[in-house]
Amino acid sequence: MSSRVNTQVVLRAHPEGPPREGDFACVQTTVPRPADGQFLIRNLYLSLDAGFRQWMNEGAGDGYLPAMELNQPVMGLVLGEVVESQHPDYSPGDLVMGRTRWESFSLADGNDYMTKLAPDPAVPISHYLGVLGPTGLTAYFGMRDIGRPKPGETVLVSTAAGAVGSVAAQIARIHGSRVIGLTSSDDKCRWLVDDMGLDGAINYRSGEGIEAGLARLCGDGIDVYFDNVGGATLDAALAHLRIGARVVMCGALAGYNDTKPLPGPFNMFKIITQRALLQGFMVTDYVAEYPAAIDELAGWLKQGRLRGAEEVVEGIEQTGPAFCRMFAGGNRGKLVVRVGEPSRV
Amino acid sequence: MSSRVNTQVVLRAHPEGPPREGDFACVQTTVPRPADGQFLIRNLYLSLDAGFRQWMNEGAGDGYLPAMELNQPVMGLVLGEVVESQHPDYSPGDLVMGRTRWESFSLADGNDYMTKLAPDPAVPISHYLGVLGPTGLTAYFGMRDIGRPKPGETVLVSTAAGAVGSVAAQIARIHGSRVIGLTSSDDKCRWLVDDMGLDGAINYRSGEGIEAGLARLCGDGIDVYFDNVGGATLDAALAHLRIGARVVMCGALAGYNDTKPLPGPFNMFKIITQRALLQGFMVTDYVAEYPAAIDELAGWLKQGRLRGAEEVVEGIEQTGPAFCRMFAGGNRGKLVVRVGEPSRV
Repeated sequence: MSSRVNTQVVLRAHPEGPPREGDFACVQTTVPRPADGQFLIRNLYLSLDAGFRQWMNEGAGDGYLPAMELNQPVMGLVLGEVVESQHPDYSPGDLVMGRTRWESFSLADGNDYMTKLAPDPAVPISHYLGVLGPTGLTAYFGMRDIGRPKPGETVLVSTAAGAVGSVAAQIARIHGSRVIGLTSSDDKCRWLVDDMGLDGAINYRSGEGIEAGLARLCGDGIDVYFDNVGGATLDAALAHLRIGARVVMCGALAGYNDTKPLPGPFNMFKIITQRALLQGFMVTDYVAEYPAAIDELAGWLKQGRLRGAEEVVEGIEQTGPAFCRMFAGGNRGKLVVRVGEPSRV
Repeated sequence: MSSRVNTQVVLRAHPEGPPREGDFACVQTTVPRPADGQFLIRNLYLSLDAGFRQWMNEGAGDGYLPAMELNQPVMGLVLGEVVESQHPDYSPGDLVMGRTRWESFSLADGNDYMTKLAPDPAVPISHYLGVLGPTGLTAYFGMRDIGRPKPGETVLVSTAAGAVGSVAAQIARIHGSRVIGLTSSDDKCRWLVDDMGLDGAINYRSGEGIEAGLARLCGDGIDVYFDNVGGATLDAALAHLRIGARVVMCGALAGYNDTKPLPGPFNMFKIITQRALLQGFMVTDYVAEYPAAIDELAGWLKQGRLRGAEEVVEGIEQTGPAFCRMFAGGNRGKLVVRVGEPSRV
């Protein structure tokens, strides 16, 4: 262990609206020692996931995850190396990933989706939090089981420049669909078309607006809508569904910053007339299928058919600011924070 | 033909909100003669279907059906006897059903879902507009392909005392589910439990309200919600979905009286966390499967496992008033208007 100091990012205030830097603070504590059945992880990367925003609200526990408490480390996904173990299944040197907290060292007991990784040396380790991790797997299973994109179909992806959206969009391209992305700047539109290979992109914050953008690029209708945001964007997409359309209900970013639920879509009747299917899913239901999915995704990466877009922020003190920037649409692809170097490569 | 007068129910005004009697009027015209490729139907029963309300709005044509025009006969489903034919596939004496107009005689050309019936003599002919007709078939296919009720599951049915709901609820009972109905009066609650065999019923207009009713009767959650209404009822049901729930998106009664779309559900995020499926369908996609479905439904009727609840109103001049009464929740089961007697039984 390089240090006996554990730096933690704690929640200073329940965010109101989009999270602000002052909602988070770094504190220094001592590195804990594992008790019987526990092990200690030296974290290498912290994962920034918009979906965790909702559990930052006061009393937001919902049976899936508990509400985060003030002055406690922020709950989040980490990737790290086991450095000390009192657990029979984990040994020093193991590379693991799971849900702990934003901190430089984490105690764990093997629960909370803790997974041992056997990383492919041809792929950056951080990709196991991104394109080969929960966000990439979310895109993979959502498209495979609900979206089911076919050659020639039109697929619309929201937050297409985000960690989930950028993978979902590329997977639909791999399946031969025509893919249109929604994002929040002209720069990201260009990036989606030029670097990610999408067929078109709509800046929903431009003067054109989402309705005109959809009329221009999805005028013949949408066969698959991969929804990461809900709200008005879902509504606009519903209005353009083709008969037999599938809507992958993956996230509800538009509502994460609100303390009251957003009013839902006006265009529910379209679900009936278009014989559409909307289906929600949680990637954690697919744990048993992760290895095969990671193999397929890694194969596409190595063939150059899939790009693992990611942005690496340096230093744990940048965690809170980077999380806030994500809600302002500042990232391209997966956003991770590097907090340590692997002791072996 | 018993008369050369054709009585027609015309649309006098586009309804604003729930339809009112003054929106309809009866007019007398002469019975038309079929041209080449046409045949003349003497109507026996007119079907009253809430879903047609939406096409009564000005400019409501939507690619599925055209908007109804003022002073023209109201579009609707009819069951009648061919009395004159210039069409090679239809002969006098044929019993047929299809979409024509609310009138005593209808010209038809074999389109608009025109179907020849070979009625089972053990079943009232009017049932072919109800439990064995579009409304019963809607309940049948919606439950079979989307709801998929299983033994021990809890199934919630909205407008459970209506033509579709009463059949959907009974089919879920036949599949061994526990079935709770939503309806608008204590009388209809009793009827659903005592006569239709439901496990419970909630009067959503009572002091208790829908939320408390669901907490009382669906406290462990809902596995299948058969939605005929949309709006706030759908929202309340979403809040109670169990993991893996299915929502049959069948109708949107709550919105039919509005000229602007209703705000949709607030609880869309539940679709994600509960891995729920919402799917719309149109019964007309199943035309090829109608005969087998009608056989199964008729079998259940004759075994006493299914009751074909219907209310027969006498005389075409009662059509408009009965349609209005349906929107006030005045009917139990399928509402049809008898406008003629079959010439043979």
